[in-house]
Amino acid sequence: MPLRILADLALPADALEALRAGTRDHTLLLPARPAASVLAKGEPDPQLTTADVVFGQPDAPALLASASVRWAHISSAGITRYDTVTFRDGARARGLMLSNSSSVYDEACAVHGLSFLLAHARQLPRGLATRTPNGSTEWNSLRAASGTLRGETVLLVGFGAIARRLAELLRPFGVNLIAFRRQPRGDEGMPVVTEGGLAEALSQADHVVNILPESDSTRRFFGQDRFGQFRRGATFHNLGRGATVDQSSLVAALHSGQVGEAWLDVTDPEPLPEDHPLWRAPNCFITPHVAGGHAGEAVHLVRHFLANLDRFVRGEPLLDRVF
Amino acid sequence: MPLRILADLALPADALEALRAGTRDHTLLLPARPAASVLAKGEPDPQLTTADVVFGQPDAPALLASASVRWAHISSAGITRYDTVTFRDGARARGLMLSNSSSVYDEACAVHGLSFLLAHARQLPRGLATRTPNGSTEWNSLRAASGTLRGETVLLVGFGAIARRLAELLRPFGVNLIAFRRQPRGDEGMPVVTEGGLAEALSQADHVVNILPESDSTRRFFGQDRFGQFRRGATFHNLGRGATVDQSSLVAALHSGQVGEAWLDVTDPEPLPEDHPLWRAPNCFITPHVAGGHAGEAVHLVRHFLANLDRFVRGEPLLDRVF
Repeated sequence: MPLRILADLALPADALEALRAGTRDHTLLLPARPAASVLAKGEPDPQLTTADVVFGQPDAPALLASASVRWAHISSAGITRYDTVTFRDGARARGLMLSNSSSVYDEACAVHGLSFLLAHARQLPRGLATRTPNGSTEWNSLRAASGTLRGETVLLVGFGAIARRLAELLRPFGVNLIAFRRQPRGDEGMPVVTEGGLAEALSQADHVVNILPESDSTRRFFGQDRFGQFRRGATFHNLGRGATVDQSSLVAALHSGQVGEAWLDVTDPEPLPEDHPLWRAPNCFITPHVAGGHAGEAVHLVRHFLANLDRFVRGEPLLDRVF
Repeated sequence: MPLRILADLALPADALEALRAGTRDHTLLLPARPAASVLAKGEPDPQLTTADVVFGQPDAPALLASASVRWAHISSAGITRYDTVTFRDGARARGLMLSNSSSVYDEACAVHGLSFLLAHARQLPRGLATRTPNGSTEWNSLRAASGTLRGETVLLVGFGAIARRLAELLRPFGVNLIAFRRQPRGDEGMPVVTEGGLAEALSQADHVVNILPESDSTRRFFGQDRFGQFRRGATFHNLGRGATVDQSSLVAALHSGQVGEAWLDVTDPEPLPEDHPLWRAPNCFITPHVAGGHAGEAVHLVRHFLANLDRFVRGEPLLDRVF
């Protein structure tokens, strides 16, 4: 039986074409005003009240209120606006399934994370900016500040698919990996700490890689206390969500040298206002939430949705199902 | 029997201390005017005429003319000034052995190379410079220009220890590796091309990684012809020596888009003069010959020499022996 599928997201022409082709047995509903990006929140769409399936970033209360939608496939890895007790309880009560697009972005996020670790290890911002001659004091200092990651400790805070992939990429470097996970499952392939062991793990890490999603339990997870538990001068990376960090504490830790460098793909808000102190904090490097980006990502996103649509139609388990 | 060991290089205090401690059974000779860096050429030193062993960057004609020196351990991976027919023939004629310090720098060079590949893949210079909001044209363009290396072809031009290590680091990325080597040995672990297959390999590569040493046969190896054989828009990396590239041709290839990006750790000369056109060429990123640099490298260099000194004294095969 044909489904009514609301695609509540902005797509370039090639991806929209792939979506039209892949849903031709169904009715594809497009919003009057699509969201600005795959990450942006859509306007509440009146078609939500009659759709069976939604793909995109639908308005959370309107989605919950819809009696017709049985499955929502979110067009991002992050699901902050649906990850509340109210939404989860409401979804459970009326049998709404939610899946996300984490498989689409995992690999690129992990590679972005390693690019941060290596840009730090090789001091690329400094090296690319200088024209210092061989043998100068600056040259010797730059070489002495460089490294290979060998023997360094990398703490992965938040252990999902991105962390797993980053760990695979890091294996040949001879690093010591530690995972922080609230509920260890024994399949992490490295030592795991929970809340009780986090302070000690933070004190041992040369690199703290934050991959936490944003939720009520992770908001401002990294603040003055946790930065204070870092080994002095360690590097902080954020590939998760900006709201998991208390940015004033990070600014202070960078100025004091407690945090040696910060490599951030996410901030709160995005972008930061022009006068935000993180822009002027020492050794703070910021990319504009592009860690998951890759050539062809919109088509990749659509293909992932279509593969899940096949599963939904056949009654098979969904990929990247959240609840 | 104690040896007379001339250490013809500039060393920081900790490394000099390690050298003194490790040579206390011998006579350590220090030059009146040490070279400016481990890479810089030393002045001809009168002590060369009585030394048994030289460690550093001795003047090549003076080294060849010395009747006493039986072994020279060069304090760099590159041995350009000793890699001539005259020097090799002369050394062979009088039984002079030459070893280099490639083991000291291999790992850092390989990691530096991967940092270039990933900074390109994740478009770090562009991402770190922009403050563009999610969903903007610039943001979408930046994400679309980003990648993960998966499925891309990396051609390693020059296949020694750096290339081997870089290949190990690249394995988890799902890249296609090809090696260029004049004399394949069958132990490369990847397809190998020689001179006759180079043009086709260049046309397939997304990344051309130049790790050639400088010698009479590699000078200006990459010029107009070979850049013309690149797949249009491919990335060129240079971790070897600047003189292996005809820089005017590289400038032209960057301006035409034939070479999409250049990531160079070495140039000719170093640093380039302020008005050199490579500084203004589009998508050209230059670090100042720091690929081999790492914390503690001078002590590492001395330890490597001392390990080889042990071997020399025992009559065992030298590490990193060149001839």
